[in-house]
Amino acid sequence: MAPKTEHPHTPAFTKRDVDGDSSQRSVCDTCGFIDYQNPKVIVGSVVRHKNKVLMCKRAIEPRIGYWTLPAGFLELHETAEDGARREAMEEACAEIKIDRLLAVYSVTHISQIQLMYKAQLVRPDIAPGPESQEVALYDWDEIPWDNLAFPSVLWTLKYAKEVWDMDDFSPFGNPPKGKFPFDFR
Amino acid sequence: MAPKTEHPHTPAFTKRDVDGDSSQRSVCDTCGFIDYQNPKVIVGSVVRHKNKVLMCKRAIEPRIGYWTLPAGFLELHETAEDGARREAMEEACAEIKIDRLLAVYSVTHISQIQLMYKAQLVRPDIAPGPESQEVALYDWDEIPWDNLAFPSVLWTLKYAKEVWDMDDFSPFGNPPKGKFPFDFR
Repeated sequence: MAPKTEHPHTPAFTKRDVDGDSSQRSVCDTCGFIDYQNPKVIVGSVVRHKNKVLMCKRAIEPRIGYWTLPAGFLELHETAEDGARREAMEEACAEIKIDRLLAVYSVTHISQIQLMYKAQLVRPDIAPGPESQEVALYDWDEIPWDNLAFPSVLWTLKYAKEVWDMDDFSPFGNPPKGKFPFDFR
Repeated sequence: MAPKTEHPHTPAFTKRDVDGDSSQRSVCDTCGFIDYQNPKVIVGSVVRHKNKVLMCKRAIEPRIGYWTLPAGFLELHETAEDGARREAMEEACAEIKIDRLLAVYSVTHISQIQLMYKAQLVRPDIAPGPESQEVALYDWDEIPWDNLAFPSVLWTLKYAKEVWDMDDFSPFGNPPKGKFPFDFR
């Protein structure tokens, strides 16, 4: 018997129509497995302590060295709130209490849904986790506005400031294009 | 040269630690590709027309033959609102106008984040799409409460009824366990 030149389970994906589906999908020619690709969920928080906000200087790409809010990819079998708490712990060793949903963004060019929560520090102890070069509690005026990592960090801080002392507010969404340019103060 | 017995690109995935990551991931032994698996986003709507709600009888598994709200997986590069509009069109040939975010659920056993919107029909014309056996506009009392497809359909309808005539409300989240048993009316 001639030796096989291909592994029996080598996947070979082709873009194809799939029954009852409006988009084409990558389907394995061998086993029929459909490789669905969908947006990912980012969960994060604006964490308040007294009148200050917790921020993290990124130790990883993208935007290494720029300032962000504690946030990251939601994991399998995790609630959005648990994910936001985990990210605050991982990035800033911060134990937080979540108050309420602050914002929901669709960031289409990178296929992300971002869920940002309003939260507070349970204990004032913070320290950089492996993904942060530095963490800090900033007054509004001290926030490094010129060195924010992503537009949605700016949108979220801006909205958080607006509703800072409100118990009752609706979640913010993507601002109209051009409303909050990235150099907005 | 001996014939190769394996395709050079055969992936062979092993669960491993990944730099700067708190969970183990499936990593390809050959090329180092990390197969991140994350929750998926469901987008849908409670669509109002006069005092009625749009519902769809499922033509596909899971829960074929049971009633649901128009909803489905968010696609790459799509906003949550565009996704909810697309699903209403695909499942009920319904053109909708979205009013506001109604609910955000974490359904951890199937790793889904569900974003449900309050919406209204732009035109009264509806018809079953390929994933629906039947579509209907129901008064609250006519809703097939005994034949709903999923618990989150019940939660969403219950909350929608509460805020039906309000312009201003906060999005609902997972109800406390046991608060809305699946046979809730």
